[in-house]
Amino acid sequence: MTTPTSIPGLARTPEPPYYAVIFTSQRSTADAAGYAAMAERMATLAAQQPGYLGAESARDAHGLGITVSYWRSEADIAAWKAQAEHLEAQRLGHERWYAGFELRVARVERAYSMPARQLVDR
Amino acid sequence: MTTPTSIPGLARTPEPPYYAVIFTSQRSTADAAGYAAMAERMATLAAQQPGYLGAESARDAHGLGITVSYWRSEADIAAWKAQAEHLEAQRLGHERWYAGFELRVARVERAYSMPARQLVDR
Repeated sequence: MTTPTSIPGLARTPEPPYYAVIFTSQRSTADAAGYAAMAERMATLAAQQPGYLGAESARDAHGLGITVSYWRSEADIAAWKAQAEHLEAQRLGHERWYAGFELRVARVERAYSMPARQLVDR
Repeated sequence: MTTPTSIPGLARTPEPPYYAVIFTSQRSTADAAGYAAMAERMATLAAQQPGYLGAESARDAHGLGITVSYWRSEADIAAWKAQAEHLEAQRLGHERWYAGFELRVARVERAYSMPARQLVDR
């Protein structure tokens, strides 16, 4: 018997329903170091908020990125949006880091996953 | 007067509500050429399905990718899932192309966007 290996970039969310914030953004060319530091700080901070269930994030070589964060409720999302350090990050995002973005709040209704491949012999 | 410049990677979706399929996947190392050809074919085919509203996709250098496709209704999503060529792509994905994935179906309830930067002088 083996158990599936977990894949680091995939969020292990509970059974639906829960909420997703889908944030798709095009980075500007400005301030790569400042952006990277803030992105790391926001990921850490988000994970400490009430109702945080996980997040998944990918950015391609052209600077197009998608971050999906998962939350227990819309109230938890509203509280995170209004968090003081996060407000400052949002301001800098508008002003400096993004050429454009779309943000969508959605209620996850169903989910399924493919287990990771078995990495041990059977 | 200027109009906002559209950003190629961002889907221009209508006012909510509509549906999102959030597909987060870790690529295996197998068959890069076969995967790339199929991914392109599936993007073209999805865009021809009834109820398709757009899609956004990013994959990072470690092979972690997020594709979000947007649909008018859950029935449109079910029809796309059952499309014959897509079924074959799903089979190959399970068998060959993915080390793991999470797929979530969600109802988009609110959305907002940051317009693209003005690219002309004012």
